[in-house]
Amino acid sequence: MSEPFDAVDVIRTKRDGGAVPEAKLRWLVDAYTRGYVADAQMSAFTMAVLLNGMERDEIRVLTDAMIASGERMSFDGLGKVTADKHSTGGVGDKITLPLAPLVAAYGVAVPQLSGRGLGHTGGTLDKLESIPGWRAALSNDEMLAQLRDVGAVVCAAGSGLAPADKKLYALRDVTGTVEAIPLIASSIMSKKIAEGTASLVLDVKFGSGAFMKDIDRARELARTMVELGTDSGVATTALLTDMTTPLGLAIGNANEVRESVEVLAGGGPSDVVELTLALAREMLRAAGVDEDPADALADGRAMDAWRRMIRAQDGDPDAALPTARETHVVRAERDGYVTTMDAFGVGIAAWRLGAGRARAEDPVVHAAGIDLAVKPGARVRAGDAILTMSADDPALFDRGLEALAGAIEIGDTAPESAPIVRERITA
Amino acid sequence: MSEPFDAVDVIRTKRDGGAVPEAKLRWLVDAYTRGYVADAQMSAFTMAVLLNGMERDEIRVLTDAMIASGERMSFDGLGKVTADKHSTGGVGDKITLPLAPLVAAYGVAVPQLSGRGLGHTGGTLDKLESIPGWRAALSNDEMLAQLRDVGAVVCAAGSGLAPADKKLYALRDVTGTVEAIPLIASSIMSKKIAEGTASLVLDVKFGSGAFMKDIDRARELARTMVELGTDSGVATTALLTDMTTPLGLAIGNANEVRESVEVLAGGGPSDVVELTLALAREMLRAAGVDEDPADALADGRAMDAWRRMIRAQDGDPDAALPTARETHVVRAERDGYVTTMDAFGVGIAAWRLGAGRARAEDPVVHAAGIDLAVKPGARVRAGDAILTMSADDPALFDRGLEALAGAIEIGDTAPESAPIVRERITA
Repeated sequence: MSEPFDAVDVIRTKRDGGAVPEAKLRWLVDAYTRGYVADAQMSAFTMAVLLNGMERDEIRVLTDAMIASGERMSFDGLGKVTADKHSTGGVGDKITLPLAPLVAAYGVAVPQLSGRGLGHTGGTLDKLESIPGWRAALSNDEMLAQLRDVGAVVCAAGSGLAPADKKLYALRDVTGTVEAIPLIASSIMSKKIAEGTASLVLDVKFGSGAFMKDIDRARELARTMVELGTDSGVATTALLTDMTTPLGLAIGNANEVRESVEVLAGGGPSDVVELTLALAREMLRAAGVDEDPADALADGRAMDAWRRMIRAQDGDPDAALPTARETHVVRAERDGYVTTMDAFGVGIAAWRLGAGRARAEDPVVHAAGIDLAVKPGARVRAGDAILTMSADDPALFDRGLEALAGAIEIGDTAPESAPIVRERITA
Repeated sequence: MSEPFDAVDVIRTKRDGGAVPEAKLRWLVDAYTRGYVADAQMSAFTMAVLLNGMERDEIRVLTDAMIASGERMSFDGLGKVTADKHSTGGVGDKITLPLAPLVAAYGVAVPQLSGRGLGHTGGTLDKLESIPGWRAALSNDEMLAQLRDVGAVVCAAGSGLAPADKKLYALRDVTGTVEAIPLIASSIMSKKIAEGTASLVLDVKFGSGAFMKDIDRARELARTMVELGTDSGVATTALLTDMTTPLGLAIGNANEVRESVEVLAGGGPSDVVELTLALAREMLRAAGVDEDPADALADGRAMDAWRRMIRAQDGDPDAALPTARETHVVRAERDGYVTTMDAFGVGIAAWRLGAGRARAEDPVVHAAGIDLAVKPGARVRAGDAILTMSADDPALFDRGLEALAGAIEIGDTAPESAPIVRERITA
């Protein structure tokens, strides 16, 4: 046997709380990608990582090894500064849609290699596919040309980036090791670094609708990713943002596009505007642009960039978006203040109505979803509309209502309001 | 899907430090044996067990589930009390050979379902196969008949006992999870309990030649197994015994049989006699026999039982045992006291000479091994023989000497002597 190391030896090092030396860690990732190291060995290793952690330098090496497993992109020949954003995902999180053209309006190239939704969180590509004609799959050349001409591109990530991460993520998914922060960080960052962006802003969410329910864990993930990006030469900052309540009023696909267009037109729900601007400020700052992103929302430049971005991918920005066959309004059962709209419950309800998928190969129903009439803090009277569910099949409303049970609470006093952006984390 | 539980859910429970409910744990073992739960899932679970432990009741359920995966034997119709012994394995550990006939001489049935050696520790079956004609494979009926007629039987464990353990052990071996005490305990005890013995004495070894180097870990394993046996209705005690020095003077196969016959003849090295008697006392006590086992060594009854036991399995107790073609004597380099004879080093040396095997399918050389001339505490002069290596191929002596480097130390003062049995652990 010509393998330089032994998988059991590497597993034991991590199991016993040690740091795996760089050469061994690089070998492990490579040998796993080649199939020499078995799934059973890698899952024992990932469980040991979950329980014993990884040092900062191990995380950097792991990430670099995953990047080395595939191709690297480069925006060097673009003649523009690039700025990228990544969100850990939430309910009603359509921020990429207004954000990418907004930042592009300032001459910054914004490559947004995105994914599809799975479970209760939506996917940016699913949302944009509500727009007639729009296509997610671009060649690398098409993507670069669009970045040059339009500045903003949202498209499917090629399968060539960090294939080791793809294999490892599929394994973690079935072995209870998704939640390991070093592995989450390296999974996200390996793809972002391989993309070749100069700077990156992370929207790390906490709360019921987020992957990390707990703010402390979210902070740890944010810090780990900021360190990792910095160690890998990408200017990285993170915002820690609240995902206990859905973002905006629209949760679905077509309705989230509609809401995004409202924001680009200078309107839209205040939380969506607030988070879009906070992230845009980070991206502009990283790109060395000293301007206020609110201006481009107000004067139409962001909307122009949006329309160019959609058209460049064969979408019609003026086409009517799909609407669902049936709607069902949920009304307040009593007078009072809306105190809670649980993001997880609302996300599950929208998913069940058809907005999301249970398996990667399932389609989504673009017109299905939930439109909130109010947000926490609103004063309502019994009988007032709280939200509208939309679905093609009215039989799904009962399943949506089940998911909503307990998710929406009305009390006697208004809840305290908190800013959506809680912390900013820098290297 | 008709599976009642989800493997990821079970893994998460253990990962997060919880106790897995009985029904889920039973399902996990059954589903893994069936192949529904994947190796990668089971290895993540075993790593979580290694790092987070298992409660006493979980260990009992796990063990019972492994027993339920296969057949159970019963000695109920035997008309004799049964007493079993298990050793965690060491260097020069031939105790089963004199012990089984010794205890059988008192009318107790002693079923010793044994294994073969792997790595630096020998296997009882390999040792007995040094005897011309002797066969390890018996049918269940043959085994029961021999227990009835002779009282003692040492034979290969059928593959029908605890097949889940076999599959799980092979997985642990390649995933760095062998060392989990709950899993070691359930692996050993599932087979012992499935065998159907009424009582069990465990010889749990610590020190360089043992699986557990550390006495505290060995004690934890002993306690875990005693609790588990007790919880499963088998009267179980354990002796914690020293394996820092090889047991007796012979390390190999044929030479260990020779040494065992010396013990049965009333002679033999004092440590082998001491441990044989200590274990025999435990087994007789558990069987309700109030007699001194030293008597049967002195008056020849144990030797008679040995001869009957060997003959019953077609062995010739009077046949000459094989001898090696070549020998090499290692001599003292200085005057002084032997202070150290490291069991691990001596065990590796004997293994390299051919007494052990590296892969399960390799043969052993029955005549190969090491015969010690002295033990720690002995006074030697430069040039005195310390040990003799035996092998068919003299080229192996250099490899044996390499393994012995640093294993034997001679100092100016005699080392303190310690009893071989350090603790007795009961429920």
